[in-house]
Amino acid sequence: MFQNICIKSFQAVSSVTLYRHVFKNKGTRLRHIGAAILSSGMAAYAATKYKAEMAKAEIDTVNFMAAPITDIKKLSQNPNDMKTKMELLIMKMQAEVCHALEAEEDEGTTFHVDRWERPEGGGGITCVIQDGRTFEKAGVNISVVQGHLPPAAVQQMRARGKILQEGPLPFFAAGISSVIHPRNPMVPTVHFNYRYFEVKNADGSVQWWFGGGTDLTPYYLDEDDSKYFHLTLKEACDKHDKTYYPKFKAWCDDYFHVKHRGERRGIGGIFFDDLDTPSQEKTFNFVRTCAESVIPSYIPLVQKHKDDPYGYSERQWQLLRRGRYVEFNLIYDRGTKFGLYTPGARYESILMSLPLTAKWEYMHMPSPHSKEWKLLEVLKNPRDWLGTGNATK
Amino acid sequence: MFQNICIKSFQAVSSVTLYRHVFKNKGTRLRHIGAAILSSGMAAYAATKYKAEMAKAEIDTVNFMAAPITDIKKLSQNPNDMKTKMELLIMKMQAEVCHALEAEEDEGTTFHVDRWERPEGGGGITCVIQDGRTFEKAGVNISVVQGHLPPAAVQQMRARGKILQEGPLPFFAAGISSVIHPRNPMVPTVHFNYRYFEVKNADGSVQWWFGGGTDLTPYYLDEDDSKYFHLTLKEACDKHDKTYYPKFKAWCDDYFHVKHRGERRGIGGIFFDDLDTPSQEKTFNFVRTCAESVIPSYIPLVQKHKDDPYGYSERQWQLLRRGRYVEFNLIYDRGTKFGLYTPGARYESILMSLPLTAKWEYMHMPSPHSKEWKLLEVLKNPRDWLGTGNATK
Repeated sequence: MFQNICIKSFQAVSSVTLYRHVFKNKGTRLRHIGAAILSSGMAAYAATKYKAEMAKAEIDTVNFMAAPITDIKKLSQNPNDMKTKMELLIMKMQAEVCHALEAEEDEGTTFHVDRWERPEGGGGITCVIQDGRTFEKAGVNISVVQGHLPPAAVQQMRARGKILQEGPLPFFAAGISSVIHPRNPMVPTVHFNYRYFEVKNADGSVQWWFGGGTDLTPYYLDEDDSKYFHLTLKEACDKHDKTYYPKFKAWCDDYFHVKHRGERRGIGGIFFDDLDTPSQEKTFNFVRTCAESVIPSYIPLVQKHKDDPYGYSERQWQLLRRGRYVEFNLIYDRGTKFGLYTPGARYESILMSLPLTAKWEYMHMPSPHSKEWKLLEVLKNPRDWLGTGNATK
Repeated sequence: MFQNICIKSFQAVSSVTLYRHVFKNKGTRLRHIGAAILSSGMAAYAATKYKAEMAKAEIDTVNFMAAPITDIKKLSQNPNDMKTKMELLIMKMQAEVCHALEAEEDEGTTFHVDRWERPEGGGGITCVIQDGRTFEKAGVNISVVQGHLPPAAVQQMRARGKILQEGPLPFFAAGISSVIHPRNPMVPTVHFNYRYFEVKNADGSVQWWFGGGTDLTPYYLDEDDSKYFHLTLKEACDKHDKTYYPKFKAWCDDYFHVKHRGERRGIGGIFFDDLDTPSQEKTFNFVRTCAESVIPSYIPLVQKHKDDPYGYSERQWQLLRRGRYVEFNLIYDRGTKFGLYTPGARYESILMSLPLTAKWEYMHMPSPHSKEWKLLEVLKNPRDWLGTGNATK
């Protein structure tokens, strides 16, 4: 029902020819125009309860950062297809996260929005704030792509145990990916990514799976924040399966490993891939709950620390840790590598995860027992924040 | 002869028990202590012409940044072994480059020297200047390592055409690698790397080859500098084989390719690998000439531009280009990837190539026909600087 309503409202909005142009660069302006279109259209929908519901849903829809990637008609014809449901979920989530972040910024600092198309099929919407007062660089990207799996991707999927047929493999992927680098070193960086994948076999059968996760990279350790962050993710997991949090927490520590340094990128969170049980609907619901937990797990930390005092040395440490972030993303991260090696990939959307500024000092080592050293200790030995066991995979 | 003399002089110096300790961190102090040892030992060597030659050579030797990695006795017993000759060449070159760079710095700014050992065999000497007035970060590293080839290295070598036997493969590698990031954006970054490799087959036969190159990464294009740099490298190549420069220039453009951006890292230079003809001695002599051309190809550019005026926007552009440098090194560079994936690798020596500071802005694009744009044009379309043809491989 929700999807259907979203689509209908978008059909109305997208008839405004300025639509796509207006979306570019002007988040706030868009919302005002969207609201104007909405209010002029409200009367026509107000007669019945059904129409009232639609109008209510339109308010959600018009908040999207740009028009969905898939043609509105196609989406409206397939409201129960998981491809439609996932695309609408990531659109909604992108908008909610962007608006939640904008609310922490100075008036007038809004996301720059780029809606792009991929010649091979599909496209994406990349939203970026750069040099804001609260966020030094924040990117929230969605992409909805289809085509045939590149050989490197097939190899990577087989290497992690997927059984894929020989010959060309049509695929569909829809995902949201975001990295938020705040300016104040007392506010952690957060990353999240939720994605849905389909591969079509020659006999027409479809293999599908979900992947994703949310993880935190503080520059200074605040134990209360760490526990709060993990607890929020655990509560999201627990609604679906009590085994998820300990398993996905360990997977996260294992994945975000800067191996050459023997350090984790941050204090972890949850990470999972190839999730295809117990059912498509139940897994989607789990992913939706995870996605919905991003704002409550992170925004309170921003609000708590964004005006904390700090000095030169805290800034330098933040920049050095951002160098480690770059190392992980460019050397190890599967998504980045896969993306950059894919011909025709939109590298600006992939590399939007990199911080505005990063530093590398030869042989930097914080003084023993300093605040910086305490963070390193946790990065070298991931902690079991909630006493759930399985602190490493 | 030179090698033999070097070794003898080092035996004297290395009898000072403080030797290794003194070397650490104290480039200038080392040289003074070394000179004192030398002068007290001079009388004993002065009687014959041979001894006089040795004394002369000792002055070169004492300038080494630290004691060679291979045991002095072993080196002295095998003066004609290519392993000895290469180790002494890279030691000499390291010292000469470090001293040439120190001469461009403020009094008192000297290389920090770390001599390190590798548990699996061999070790290296890493020399770094950080936050100097002329050089924001400059690293000159030598390493001399042996052991058994890791599977990833075997795979990489086979992929580029090497025929290697099955089973454990003992190897020896000696090389020098350096990246110099100056502070002034008008001074280009330079990188060079020269290396010798041996792999022993089960029947005791040895496969050997040399690799290396020197390449320039300017932030602003100075056509005269570009031609001068390429000409110096061409002259070095031409002394050995007139086909080398066009071939290795094209190879360089091909190798230093930030593929996802369709840009070269810089304006190139020369690059070669797997060079094993016409003979071991002749190839070594070519590599030595290349190594000797580093200082004359680069230091004049430093002297010409190190006090050039520049402002905020030139600095920002330099930082953005340094971000691209990081992308190449962490995503594509064979040496960095090979190094970081090798268990027990000294990652600080590998990552010393990264700049002190780098920046990533989403969708940065210089204005058409600006100075920055002119550089990009050359990075996207490598130029045939000397009209030798073969501008791309």
